[in-house]
Amino acid sequence: MTGDARPAPAACSACGDRWPDPADRISELRESVLYLHTDQFFPGWSVLVLRRHATELYDLERDERARVMDEVSDVARALKLAFDARKVNYALFGNVVPHMHWHLIPRLASDLAPHDPVFAVSHDPVRLSHVERTDRILRIRSRLGR
Amino acid sequence: MTGDARPAPAACSACGDRWPDPADRISELRESVLYLHTDQFFPGWSVLVLRRHATELYDLERDERARVMDEVSDVARALKLAFDARKVNYALFGNVVPHMHWHLIPRLASDLAPHDPVFAVSHDPVRLSHVERTDRILRIRSRLGR
Repeated sequence: MTGDARPAPAACSACGDRWPDPADRISELRESVLYLHTDQFFPGWSVLVLRRHATELYDLERDERARVMDEVSDVARALKLAFDARKVNYALFGNVVPHMHWHLIPRLASDLAPHDPVFAVSHDPVRLSHVERTDRILRIRSRLGR
Repeated sequence: MTGDARPAPAACSACGDRWPDPADRISELRESVLYLHTDQFFPGWSVLVLRRHATELYDLERDERARVMDEVSDVARALKLAFDARKVNYALFGNVVPHMHWHLIPRLASDLAPHDPVFAVSHDPVRLSHVERTDRILRIRSRLGR
């Protein structure tokens, strides 16, 4: 991640720039950077990664937490608009990579399992071509208005 | 839900007090009310329900969103302390009940699938006895310090 003035754990793949892939970057926000999720079975699934290393919401100070959540909210609105979503899903886990990152998933009218969390929907991952991927990134970026 | 001065959709089970079960109430916060999740396969799984009807994070004004997220954060810390959790998971879906509610799940050292979202872990629901349930509610409540 760029712009982190605080020491980062060497073992953290986000701090070590080993994840996510820079080619998937959608937008650089103040506190976080937005990426397109590798698996696009659910169209528009994005991942918002905190610039600095933190794990839990209570690791952030109140003002910082509010700014982060404003960014989560702005991205959710952009995903809603970009994909005409009927709902947005938000998840902060960190079970594998404990560097704060939000899964933000627009749920579309065409969704095959609209009542289920995406994490409960068994599927083969969908990997887009470079052209399709760029198109999807630009579609979200334009709605973010940055 | 109590304390809601704004009109609530009649069809909403949260606004209509049909969900969650008041017997599962842990604590009443300013913006939200905390309940123990019915299925306790993952010990301590709790559900934080907004008092007023709103669906998406971007439906809230900035100050209100910050207050709600402070409550999410406070509950997460209480769950961490109450269960000596190694991580907390946070999820806002609303795919079935589109009234804002946060699933807050402490992930314990004894977790059988520590790398997976709880939503991906197939299991038979665990329903506690009244005594066990009360014990768990009091354990969380005491850590919330309210």
